[in-house]
Amino acid sequence: MQYDAIIIGAGPAGLTAGLYLARASKKVLCLEQGRTGGQIATTNHLENYPGFPEGISGPELMDAFERQAKNFGLEMMNGRVDGFRDGGEFKEVSISGFPFTAKVVIVATGLVQKLGVPGEEEFLGRGVSYCATCDGALYRERPVAVTGTSDWAVEEALFLTRFASRVYVVTQLVSFNPEDEEGKSLLAKENVELVTAATPLEILGDMRGVNSLVIKTPEGDKTLFVDGVFIFSGKKRPGTEFLAGLVNLDAAGYVVTDENCETSLRGVYAIGDVRRPKFRQVATAVGDGAIAGMDCLRHLRAKAQ
Amino acid sequence: MQYDAIIIGAGPAGLTAGLYLARASKKVLCLEQGRTGGQIATTNHLENYPGFPEGISGPELMDAFERQAKNFGLEMMNGRVDGFRDGGEFKEVSISGFPFTAKVVIVATGLVQKLGVPGEEEFLGRGVSYCATCDGALYRERPVAVTGTSDWAVEEALFLTRFASRVYVVTQLVSFNPEDEEGKSLLAKENVELVTAATPLEILGDMRGVNSLVIKTPEGDKTLFVDGVFIFSGKKRPGTEFLAGLVNLDAAGYVVTDENCETSLRGVYAIGDVRRPKFRQVATAVGDGAIAGMDCLRHLRAKAQ
Repeated sequence: MQYDAIIIGAGPAGLTAGLYLARASKKVLCLEQGRTGGQIATTNHLENYPGFPEGISGPELMDAFERQAKNFGLEMMNGRVDGFRDGGEFKEVSISGFPFTAKVVIVATGLVQKLGVPGEEEFLGRGVSYCATCDGALYRERPVAVTGTSDWAVEEALFLTRFASRVYVVTQLVSFNPEDEEGKSLLAKENVELVTAATPLEILGDMRGVNSLVIKTPEGDKTLFVDGVFIFSGKKRPGTEFLAGLVNLDAAGYVVTDENCETSLRGVYAIGDVRRPKFRQVATAVGDGAIAGMDCLRHLRAKAQ
Repeated sequence: MQYDAIIIGAGPAGLTAGLYLARASKKVLCLEQGRTGGQIATTNHLENYPGFPEGISGPELMDAFERQAKNFGLEMMNGRVDGFRDGGEFKEVSISGFPFTAKVVIVATGLVQKLGVPGEEEFLGRGVSYCATCDGALYRERPVAVTGTSDWAVEEALFLTRFASRVYVVTQLVSFNPEDEEGKSLLAKENVELVTAATPLEILGDMRGVNSLVIKTPEGDKTLFVDGVFIFSGKKRPGTEFLAGLVNLDAAGYVVTDENCETSLRGVYAIGDVRRPKFRQVATAVGDGAIAGMDCLRHLRAKAQ
C-alpha cells in the first residue's frame, strides 16, 4: 500500500500530525502497536491541556483527538513496524510483515517501557507484547506473565484473565495489596497468580516463540512456563530501535531533529516524547504534531513539482 | 506590584503559559491591550485545534483557555506596555504608566496590524488604538476614525458608534457593500460616515493627543478631524517595539529565541507568532506556551535557591 504519509504512533503528537495532513486531503496512515492515545490514555485527569477548564480524562481527550482526525479521513491501523528502509523518494515501512510505502514518515512512538532483559527484543511480536488489548486474544487457554503492578498493568492483566489459562502477575514489590476495585478484582480471579519480590531476568523461547520467563526471587532463580510476556514495567525509553543507523539518535536513543521536527533523513520526522526528553506534555506534543504536519505538507508540495 | 511572572499578550500562547505558571502556584499577571484571545478570537470556526472533533469557534476556545487559567489563579489585566527595563533579577515593566516588576517576562504579543504611517507610534495610547472595546468609552461625543473593513473592523466600529459623535470608516476599497447583518447595521447608523478609496497618510496631533487623520483620495489629500484613530488595517507585524535594544530581534522584528523560547536576555521569553514567522497555529502557540511555562518554572526554582 502506498501513502502520502505514515505516522508511527497514535499519541497526542501523532494524532495531531494526522489531523493536519488528513485535513489537507493527504492519504495518511496512523499506526499504533499499543492503545490509541499512548501514555496519556492512562491518565485519569488532565488539567493542563488548554481548552478544558474543568479538566478532562486522558482517554476522553485522546478519543476526541482520534475522532477529529478520522473526520478528515485519517486511516488508523493496529500493528508494529518490523522494518524501515530509505528508498529515496519513498520510504519503505514493513508493518507486521506487510510492505507499505510513503513519501514521508513521522515517528511519534513516544516512550516505551522496556524490561531490558535478554529475549525481549528477539521475541517482540512472537510472545513479547506491550499491549494486552492488542494481543491478548492470541493467548486463549495459554499461560502468560504480566510484569508490573501500576494501574495500567492491572488493567491490562485483568483483560488477559478473560483469555489466558493462567496469568502470572510478576512484581518486584515485596507485597501487593491494592485498595482499588480493579486491583482487588484482579487478585480475586481464579486464574491469577501473584509473584512478588521477583525480578525478570530473561525471556526464553524457540522458533515458535516465547516459552518461559526466568525470574530472580529471594529463594533463587525460577522459571515461569508461559507463552506470552506482557511488559508494563522497566525503564521508559524512546521507541526508536527501528531507526538506528537510519537517522541521528542521541546517546539515550532520542531522535535528533531540526526546529521543524525533521530528522537527519529528509522526509522523516520525529515528534513528541521521542524527540524531546525535557517537556513531556500533551501541549508540547500537539505543538510538535502541528509543526511536523505543516512542514510535511510543504515537503509533499515540493515533491509534487 | 511584584509578580513572579508577567505575560504580555492573552492569546493562545500567553494563556497557556499562564495556565502552566498559575497551576504551579506562581503569582502571574497576564496583560492584554486588545481582546482576550488575540487574533484567534476573530476566527469563526477552528477545525485544527486537537480535542474538538466538531470544531469550535475562536472566541469559545479562547474563553475556555481563559477560564482554565483563571481557575488556577491567573490574574488578567487590560493595559499596554509603555516601558520595559532589565533590572537584573527583576524586570521592570511599565503598564499604562504604572510600574510592575517580575522575575520573568513572557512576550506573547503576536502580530499586530499596523498602518505604518507617521504619527502612529507617537500617538499610541494618546488617540491611536488597536482595540475599540478597550478604549472606545474614552471617545464619548468625540469624532473617531476606524481603518479597515474586515469583519473585525466592522465589529469594532459598531462598538464605537455607541460612544463617538461620528465614526469615519476609512477603507481603500472603492466600494463597500456588506451582505452580512453586522456590516449592514454599521452603515445604517446615523453617526457613521463611510470614506472609500482612501489611504491613510499620516496621523497628526499635539500635546493633548491626536487631532486629525490625513488621507489620500482620488480627489486629493483630505483631513479628517478626529480625536481617535482605531487601526484594523495595514501590515501585520510582530508586536515587539518595546523590546528593541533589549533582546535580539530578526530583521523583520520577530524575537529570536532558543528551543526553550528564551530570548537573548535571561528571564525573558517569547512565544507564539511573535517568535515564529512560519507556522501560525493555535496548536504551535500552545506548544510554545507550555515549553516557556515549564522553563520559567525551572528558572524561578533556580532563582529561589
